[in-house]
Amino acid sequence: MGLRDANELTWTQVLDLVEPMTDFAQTPILLDANSGYGDFNIFARFTKKAEALGIAGVCIEDKDFPKRNSFANTRHALEDIDSFTTKIRAAKDGQVDRDFCVVARTEALVAGAPMDEALARADAYEAAGADALFVHSKQPTATEIQEFTRQWHGSVPLVIAPTTYAATPTADFEAMGVSAIIWANHALRAATASMEQAYGEIFAARSVVGLEGRITPVQDLLALTQTKELLEAEQKYALTEPKAR
Amino acid sequence: MGLRDANELTWTQVLDLVEPMTDFAQTPILLDANSGYGDFNIFARFTKKAEALGIAGVCIEDKDFPKRNSFANTRHALEDIDSFTTKIRAAKDGQVDRDFCVVARTEALVAGAPMDEALARADAYEAAGADALFVHSKQPTATEIQEFTRQWHGSVPLVIAPTTYAATPTADFEAMGVSAIIWANHALRAATASMEQAYGEIFAARSVVGLEGRITPVQDLLALTQTKELLEAEQKYALTEPKAR
Amino acid sequence: MGLRDANELTWTQVLDLVEPMTDFAQTPILLDANSGYGDFNIFARFTKKAEALGIAGVCIEDKDFPKRNSFANTRHALEDIDSFTTKIRAAKDGQVDRDFCVVARTEALVAGAPMDEALARADAYEAAGADALFVHSKQPTATEIQEFTRQWHGSVPLVIAPTTYAATPTADFEAMGVSAIIWANHALRAATASMEQAYGEIFAARSVVGLEGRITPVQDLLALTQTKELLEAEQKYALTEPKAR
Amino acid sequence: MGLRDANELTWTQVLDLVEPMTDFAQTPILLDANSGYGDFNIFARFTKKAEALGIAGVCIEDKDFPKRNSFANTRHALEDIDSFTTKIRAAKDGQVDRDFCVVARTEALVAGAPMDEALARADAYEAAGADALFVHSKQPTATEIQEFTRQWHGSVPLVIAPTTYAATPTADFEAMGVSAIIWANHALRAATASMEQAYGEIFAARSVVGLEGRITPVQDLLALTQTKELLEAEQKYALTEPKAR
Repeated sequence: MGLRDANELTWTQVLDLVEPMTDFAQTPILLDANSGYGDFNIFARFTKKAEALGIAGVCIEDKDFPKRNSFANTRHALEDIDSFTTKIRAAKDGQVDRDFCVVARTEALVAGAPMDEALARADAYEAAGADALFVHSKQPTATEIQEFTRQWHGSVPLVIAPTTYAATPTADFEAMGVSAIIWANHALRAATASMEQAYGEIFAARSVVGLEGRITPVQDLLALTQTKELLEAEQKYALTEPKAR
Repeated sequence: MGLRDANELTWTQVLDLVEPMTDFAQTPILLDANSGYGDFNIFARFTKKAEALGIAGVCIEDKDFPKRNSFANTRHALEDIDSFTTKIRAAKDGQVDRDFCVVARTEALVAGAPMDEALARADAYEAAGADALFVHSKQPTATEIQEFTRQWHGSVPLVIAPTTYAATPTADFEAMGVSAIIWANHALRAATASMEQAYGEIFAARSVVGLEGRITPVQDLLALTQTKELLEAEQKYALTEPKAR
Repeated sequence: MGLRDANELTWTQVLDLVEPMTDFAQTPILLDANSGYGDFNIFARFTKKAEALGIAGVCIEDKDFPKRNSFANTRHALEDIDSFTTKIRAAKDGQVDRDFCVVARTEALVAGAPMDEALARADAYEAAGADALFVHSKQPTATEIQEFTRQWHGSVPLVIAPTTYAATPTADFEAMGVSAIIWANHALRAATASMEQAYGEIFAARSVVGLEGRITPVQDLLALTQTKELLEAEQKYALTEPKAR
Repeated sequence: MGLRDANELTWTQVLDLVEPMTDFAQTPILLDANSGYGDFNIFARFTKKAEALGIAGVCIEDKDFPKRNSFANTRHALEDIDSFTTKIRAAKDGQVDRDFCVVARTEALVAGAPMDEALARADAYEAAGADALFVHSKQPTATEIQEFTRQWHGSVPLVIAPTTYAATPTADFEAMGVSAIIWANHALRAATASMEQAYGEIFAARSVVGLEGRITPVQDLLALTQTKELLEAEQKYALTEPKAR
């Protein structure tokens, strides 16, 4: 039995999976918290533990939890505004590092709600303490996002994920006042394509020789994981002369 | 602080990481157990739990545990034969599914031990119940492996990982009597290269448009994880009409 | 930030916590699955993994998931019958060991629903494949349970947890046709009282001498965990003579 | 297959088990790290993650890792001093909170080494940065510990665990200069005895009525876990009026 999507992982599994990344990554990590995995109490615990792991911020969306079965629901319900803002408030109140961020994502436009509802939600989420506002759209063009940016006068950074309207140039988004763009799945999709191709070639050629030159050399892979800091630690603590055990 | 290599994961972390793969994978999974994570008692528990997860087999190598610091040890010590064979015996005695496999890997040649030692270990591991014998070599050519296959008369399948002697054609290995080849890291290396290139292009172009066509489409990605079985389950159990809550 | 109750653990945490018990326990374990941690898909995965751990059965109750905040809800809503029975069906369809049990618990009486609703739910759950029916009551006497047993004509075993109506003798429950009684928290409550008393005495007396004779001897504790089977395994696999490393 | 003792848990399992305690406990937690679960690299990662969880300190002992089978080893070997002190240094160098403690425990006396060796180890561990020195003895009286305290002139606090010489009054230990006493297993032993007795009574009486009054009331149990802070959080964030979903 498989996992249908990331929504089917528990929040403790998600933290277990990202923990090794936090051990390594030099860049800040923004963690997708879906709809918060429960009420404000659960979400506050999730963010507290994420922050303790060194996660830079979490993104929470205003869809109802748990996600309903796709056959039984044609449109996913939005969470009540008051209920959603308690999650933002509880998470913000609980943070220790003042740089930790909570990004609030509204699915209002995706759910077919009118623009006014999206704007009202954006205002409420900012008022509740969200550090950034993520407005999502699944339109084939950026028109909907453009309209939102024209009407919204919030002061926190605006985030988008132009999955379906990727053809719009980044410069246009900058002109609209968008602060950050999430290109969400391109690394995974590049990796999947390359692995399928690599295995296909190995299977056909019964050899890996043809791949060399196109794939990351083993030494480079080690260099990515054996950080300078770690090598220094080894030299610092290792015994200069092996002791008999 | 980073993880230097997979040896630094605990065996319970390894099982946690492979568990989602066992939920999905249609093909048998052979799990690298390094040197067994402790004595026969620990290794037997590891294999029991791996088997319960649906893992098809584990591979254990005869290096001493724990791995010593690389600066303090020029040559990694081999585990005592009697000690290593108790691990094989304990794991085989504990299995429930008769198809579960224990592959015994000898590092004798890599450690600089003479061919006789490698052969003696291979015999001892087979006698202890190993389902396959994995002989490792880090020579640039297959000469060492060829010599081993000439002299070894075991009856269990022989496994190799021709990382350093990949230029030798598979047909040659078949002629030597090798039953299985492990190409260990090519998917990871292909994925790493493709992700670095994808991110490089996105960063330079400030757009993902150029990637489309070369990366796996989102629909194909979903098809890889939303299995037919799962969709059937949804149709089987889902309510035909959404009920009011 | 603390865990308010077991409902706040994720289902993967619950399985992690019970896993060591399954390694040890000689008696069958019935695992409380609360309201199933999500839809039929999640519950089926939970039961599949519980079964793989060696759990003998799970108990699922028909309360809505997730539990609502206690201040915001005076009465906890019951899950829709059709939705709940898909969980039972999905779990039963997925089991491998034919002895694995799904116990369906109805909270109808606790939620203030009429007796007819409790009976209808009991019938529906049995029809969906439940191996036993657990009817819960929070009345100070067994009257409600007695009424239920008079009217219900199911053929699967009936389970109760007489937490609030514990004064009724077990023989009376037998006469009513009850098959199993769950006394849910007495071990935990006995342990808590004894630990508080032990620490109180140690703190006051600045000594542990007074406790000896009333607490389990260390040797008995070891005997509980160092099973005969394990000692035999040690003798079977251990080297008769320590080898030099 | 059971867990023989805590040494057979992986360090990541140990952290998973104590994590819920760190969510709750108001008192500082000193965590037993056995012999450090590997080399300085592993131990430093263990302590870093323990500190991030809110653990107040860890205790590491100078026994060789991994523990050998009890049949194959009559006396457990001590870890080389230089190797052990690198662990202390690496852990101390990695800590973020200056109050975090590393307690170094020497098993020299238990292993049958002479007093001079115990004293030399104590000095070396303090020099390496240990915040406290734990000297262990399994003698039936405190004579050995008394001798140690006469000869040792370290400046860090001294810790003992008088399991076998518990008859000595605490005042005597204070007179010797001992700073802290660990009574290691009395809560567990009290709990085990009380649970066995409670179940025995329930089984014999087929009733729980006789236990009431001697075991912790349910309300007190809830009070232990539903902290004031948590109830305040609920009142702070909960909606005053349940909103329609």
